[in-house]
Amino acid sequence: MITEILTVGTEILLGNIVNANAAFLSRELAGIGVSVFRHTSVGDNHKRLKNAFANAFEKADVVITTGGLGPTQDDITKGVAAEYFGLELEMHEESRQRIITRFAGRTLPESVERNALVPQGATVFPNENGSAPGICIESGGKILIMLPGPPHEMQPMFLNHAAAFLRGKTDGVFVSRTLKIIGIGETAVETRLQDLIDAQTNPTIAPYAKVGEVHVRLTASALNETAAHDLLSPVADEIYSRLSPQIYGEDETSLAEIVIAMLKAKNQTVAVAESCTGGLVSADLVSVAGCSSVFLEGFTTYSNEAKIARLSVSPSLLETHGAVSPEVAAAMAEGAAKAANATVGISTTGIAGPDGGTESKPVGLVYVGLFIAGRETITAKFNTIGNRAEVRCRSTMLALDFLRRNLPLDNPPTEC
Amino acid sequence: MITEILTVGTEILLGNIVNANAAFLSRELAGIGVSVFRHTSVGDNHKRLKNAFANAFEKADVVITTGGLGPTQDDITKGVAAEYFGLELEMHEESRQRIITRFAGRTLPESVERNALVPQGATVFPNENGSAPGICIESGGKILIMLPGPPHEMQPMFLNHAAAFLRGKTDGVFVSRTLKIIGIGETAVETRLQDLIDAQTNPTIAPYAKVGEVHVRLTASALNETAAHDLLSPVADEIYSRLSPQIYGEDETSLAEIVIAMLKAKNQTVAVAESCTGGLVSADLVSVAGCSSVFLEGFTTYSNEAKIARLSVSPSLLETHGAVSPEVAAAMAEGAAKAANATVGISTTGIAGPDGGTESKPVGLVYVGLFIAGRETITAKFNTIGNRAEVRCRSTMLALDFLRRNLPLDNPPTEC
Repeated sequence: MITEILTVGTEILLGNIVNANAAFLSRELAGIGVSVFRHTSVGDNHKRLKNAFANAFEKADVVITTGGLGPTQDDITKGVAAEYFGLELEMHEESRQRIITRFAGRTLPESVERNALVPQGATVFPNENGSAPGICIESGGKILIMLPGPPHEMQPMFLNHAAAFLRGKTDGVFVSRTLKIIGIGETAVETRLQDLIDAQTNPTIAPYAKVGEVHVRLTASALNETAAHDLLSPVADEIYSRLSPQIYGEDETSLAEIVIAMLKAKNQTVAVAESCTGGLVSADLVSVAGCSSVFLEGFTTYSNEAKIARLSVSPSLLETHGAVSPEVAAAMAEGAAKAANATVGISTTGIAGPDGGTESKPVGLVYVGLFIAGRETITAKFNTIGNRAEVRCRSTMLALDFLRRNLPLDNPPTEC
Repeated sequence: MITEILTVGTEILLGNIVNANAAFLSRELAGIGVSVFRHTSVGDNHKRLKNAFANAFEKADVVITTGGLGPTQDDITKGVAAEYFGLELEMHEESRQRIITRFAGRTLPESVERNALVPQGATVFPNENGSAPGICIESGGKILIMLPGPPHEMQPMFLNHAAAFLRGKTDGVFVSRTLKIIGIGETAVETRLQDLIDAQTNPTIAPYAKVGEVHVRLTASALNETAAHDLLSPVADEIYSRLSPQIYGEDETSLAEIVIAMLKAKNQTVAVAESCTGGLVSADLVSVAGCSSVFLEGFTTYSNEAKIARLSVSPSLLETHGAVSPEVAAAMAEGAAKAANATVGISTTGIAGPDGGTESKPVGLVYVGLFIAGRETITAKFNTIGNRAEVRCRSTMLALDFLRRNLPLDNPPTEC
């Protein structure tokens, strides 16, 4: 089932928004075995949109559009589609009632009711998060699915309605596993997997560089999910055998989730002391629902005064080694754990830039400190690259990864 | 000069990456008066890419590609383009030397040298951040510009080389101003600007909903920048007259930058106490280079114990009102300022979800506290929407905005 994704909106062509809808739909379609052969984006222009339909349906069995379903004059997708297929628009009473309910207590703008007009004979997908219903036209062996543009309307509509509709038309699945890797670069990952990448057929193997990490995505095509997983497993196992310490997790699992789960499993509690990352390490841990049983406290001690007052870092240590040093990183990690009465303390101190770098301590230099009760405090030195935001993001990930890698090792604290 | 952006890469069609390159190029092209009429994305497939060239050049004078310039078998853009235009590939010695220099001290993989092959007669854009040079082919009144896929290579190459090349071919500019609004939703913004939006011609007026804020982008087309700004000013002024308190800044300026600049201008220092945001408010302030003169310290006090120990919040206050209450928000803000010896304290406490909500304190409820030396401590209550990440992001922005709005008002502290 060859599919094209056609995103409609002048804001896309002006670069005012990034086309996240096309990425979302592609990912989801791959998951249900629908092969996307092209993305096209056109503006809110009658003639160009009509041409785009014609162009897409030359090859595609299915065209999925997003955008242009609203009630304003810019919203032309529905009208152009009706014209393209030679269908009249008619009132869809259920959608009209839904809109009226949605506006209960507020004045119903006349324009909004136009949302309830759909091409005759179309299948309607209800919009649980907005006014414009989704519309599916089947005609002459072709399928056109029109979804609203706002992601919080489009995504649930696709997942709850359009996906099931399409699933009924396919005979096979794509299943993916994404192995998430931190601590080595994309080139090094590729080099170590080169023979597998060269020999790939099914599953396919694709490495992607992200800020601070590399993802390797394996995608298998099979008749059903079990068969797809059977194809994926041996390849994933082989990659684990080569990169295991650097693979922190898979798919949607975040590094912070892994770390929180490890701390929970080991009955540890953690406190964080941050300089250059300025709260990002704490914020990442707090992004995990239920973190409160292990995350006790975070200290953003950007100034030396705060490092001294809050973390009991000695002024002479700061004087002798400077705030960006392994000695201060260690003292910060210890100080955070002690102040918060946590069993684990993790710290960051570095030069985030753009200013403040020197020859011996350049922008991007970051030290991470790790205190674990009952063990010797350890530190790591990283030379990160990128602008201020990237240095801080990479440092945050490296700090969490340092904790992930060192928590399970020898000399576990006695209470474990 | 009609332009199409053609992004090449199977990872785009699989949804593994969001097509940020197309958005970046569109935005930059608009800025130099180049009109983008379509985006197309195709996979790493010889026949489809060649068709895409043919298809694009039916309408477009200029086609700009990203991706597929690397040295591996997946990288086919250069070869297909040479074939499309009937050109041979030949070694570009300057690019070859650049690659050799780049790999100085490391073994030069044979494949990498293939990066230095370019179609005969092409203009070459040097790659300051990678191995693959950019390539520009002019033939029969058509222009093909091929840029590498990784954004950190593509963006500087476009800005430093391709933009100048294209600027020499256009006669007019698009200039945009984006007004950034916080505290009212997209629908309310649209309603208040409806007459302007209905009457728009030049500049165009386009509102966009973002998480926690709304952007209104004005775009004027004119012969030169001055003329464009003259078209933009009266419309922007009118929007300011309607929405002024909610407009926190324009274009690339972040809310945190505005807040830091205001604190600096008023000789204030700030400390942050966070519960549900978990470090995001501090991290946002630290994202601003040079924040250290005003940002003293952040306390991520997720637990009640930390609120008591670090911020001197009284246990009875927590007992009586609960951690998520205006009383505790106020005590946190005061406690943070006092502990850090700052003139301003800002706090957040809320229910980030997905669990922990009750009927009287639902998920999304957030209190922000603001202490400013010499004034009465104030608090604000917000009912934010979205998942845990969105609630935390919105809360962070609302806290910074609460500080932005209240810092300049009456009763300035005596030292101002």
